[in-house]
Amino acid sequence: MYPELFNQLKEKLERLPGVGKKTAERYAFAILGMDEEDVKDFSDILSRIKSDIKPCPGCGFLSEKHMCPICDDDTRDHSVIMVVSYAQDVVAIEKTNTYHGMYHVLNGVISSSKGIYPDDLNIDTLLKRLDGVKEVIIATSPTIDGETTALYLDKLLSSKNIYSTRLAHGLPMGASLDYADEMTLIKAMENRRHQGE
Amino acid sequence: MYPELFNQLKEKLERLPGVGKKTAERYAFAILGMDEEDVKDFSDILSRIKSDIKPCPGCGFLSEKHMCPICDDDTRDHSVIMVVSYAQDVVAIEKTNTYHGMYHVLNGVISSSKGIYPDDLNIDTLLKRLDGVKEVIIATSPTIDGETTALYLDKLLSSKNIYSTRLAHGLPMGASLDYADEMTLIKAMENRRHQGE
Repeated sequence: MYPELFNQLKEKLERLPGVGKKTAERYAFAILGMDEEDVKDFSDILSRIKSDIKPCPGCGFLSEKHMCPICDDDTRDHSVIMVVSYAQDVVAIEKTNTYHGMYHVLNGVISSSKGIYPDDLNIDTLLKRLDGVKEVIIATSPTIDGETTALYLDKLLSSKNIYSTRLAHGLPMGASLDYADEMTLIKAMENRRHQGE
Repeated sequence: MYPELFNQLKEKLERLPGVGKKTAERYAFAILGMDEEDVKDFSDILSRIKSDIKPCPGCGFLSEKHMCPICDDDTRDHSVIMVVSYAQDVVAIEKTNTYHGMYHVLNGVISSSKGIYPDDLNIDTLLKRLDGVKEVIIATSPTIDGETTALYLDKLLSSKNIYSTRLAHGLPMGASLDYADEMTLIKAMENRRHQGE
């Protein structure tokens, strides 16, 4: 029913995560309703995005230049590396404005169900960065796959005599205790601390 | 934090309806994860969409050529015009495979709250198509704005001695009676028919 080009646009939009036929159609109509200039810009950005944005050869975060701004920043503490699963996690941590070390983006987590193994992750480059590193903070998400990945890295790093730590697990701030799940409560009790510590 | 080009992509994606910062970011990462060829196609489609797809000068539906396939189809009944609010509605009706007349897409509904008045809609071209037309079916949605638009068109067409009809309102097929809202039930009772009519 729709013109062929319009259907092609819908198909591309359906490739986005969580977007079905109906949403893709709504998006396609929204794009048709934009100014010509805006759609042209959109097209230009897409034509450059794959060639201009590459993983940083240092940490694996997104970068337009050779090294990303964090790896390039000499004022940061290069002796601490925080290992995260995804580039988004770097942005989340940076928003806290309290961490001044380096990052390492694995670009995924070990997942036997999805067939993702250590070799598929950005781990080789991590091992090459460990000279002079005092601490590696493993900051994978506390999911099954995230925990598997953290355990794997823990073992790997301790075999190389690298001191590694994990982010704390416990009650999220602002949450009601009675809404917390059992695992979170168990972790919160296990990791309890004396006030003033 | 992210490279500038990546932020630009996110901004464009945030322009899509119902897409916030978080979803735009997820979409942008999904696009980064696509094959280079796919992203290039996506970019090409966008670069052509605004110039290649125009409203059909006959009915206002989307068209890549001068006239849309429906207006161009001589086997259809040109003496009946169904007036709908949006191009999507044409596709919904066509899917029923039971209507063989023409369409007219208003491209919106009269809405005083949004400042959309009859002059903003594709009504002038409708009035120019009425020669030899036996029936105009007004198929706006049964919402407040849709009803307002239908009443306006009803009056306008009857002042020109054009026979106009409205789609029936009543219980949707497959729905439970006790879940229907009062207005739907009132309409269903008002428009009740003798079996076998």
